Amino acid sequence: MDIFKAIEARHSSRKFTRAPVPRAHLEVIADAGRRAPTARNEQPWEFVAVTDRARLKELAGLAENGKFIADAGACLAVVSRPSKYYLEDGCAATENILLAATALGHQTCWVAGDKKPYAPAVCRLLGAPEGFLLVSLVAIGKAEATGGRAPKRALDEVLHWEKF
Amino acid sequence: MDIFKAIEARHSSRKFTRAPVPRAHLEVIADAGRRAPTARNEQPWEFVAVTDRARLKELAGLAENGKFIADAGACLAVVSRPSKYYLEDGCAATENILLAATALGHQTCWVAGDKKPYAPAVCRLLGAPEGFLLVSLVAIGKAEATGGRAPKRALDEVLHWEKF
Repeated sequence: MDIFKAIEARHSSRKFTRAPVPRAHLEVIADAGRRAPTARNEQPWEFVAVTDRARLKELAGLAENGKFIADAGACLAVVSRPSKYYLEDGCAATENILLAATALGHQTCWVAGDKKPYAPAVCRLLGAPEGFLLVSLVAIGKAEATGGRAPKRALDEVLHWEKF
Repeated sequence: MDIFKAIEARHSSRKFTRAPVPRAHLEVIADAGRRAPTARNEQPWEFVAVTDRARLKELAGLAENGKFIADAGACLAVVSRPSKYYLEDGCAATENILLAATALGHQTCWVAGDKKPYAPAVCRLLGAPEGFLLVSLVAIGKAEATGGRAPKRALDEVLHWEKF
């Protein structure tokens, strides 16, 4: 899929059908994540692909604003060892993941991880090493209904030339 | 350009030729930025396209690890009003910017903004409203030499199934 088409097509879906996401797709999606930019080439990220329904329900039970993960085909968690720019690195990886999943025909939703009270419990559930941090939980699957899309601010409102 | 090709092709360049970046390209690049995911649809971001050589040199003078901005064709600064997830939102936008610039045939480098001591001075130079935060400075242009690319960790090292 063309990059600009993928960027335009990506949007948040919060109701999924439980249709599975092929393992080969999850590998391609995580591969896009690991190719993200990373400060000082630290690559502090780790990706955990969850497809087991019981585990998806456990994740959903912890993430109060990601209840729909229970019905997603998969959840790709972005976890990081601590580093100065782990959030920048992890968010760049998350965006690559969203775009790659979109290009493969899936719907997605970025569920916040960092700063959420459930982050440590999710890390424990995922078996992450002590001290690791949750960046995001990406729900991936087939949306039950496409629903509305939140409107974006217009280009001429957000783009400034030389200065504000 | 295909999304996966763009993700693979994107890499950091730190030596530029001063070749200009067309204004129409910067508009397409910023447009990709504004289409990024954003928590609670807050879209706290603002994009400042700097192409004036004197201003590029001023930016380079402030950003101690972005000296090469002085020779870039342009610098697209990602600035944000304060919000809980401004860094997540701004970093997703920054990654879209890098991929879009790559797809248009430019080289790029993500220069850190957040947590840098020069961030407030850069915001002042850009004329950002009081309290706004610098997320990133993206150098865009023609690289003088492609140079080496930092190696990435292998997929089977970073991808875990169901748990660590």
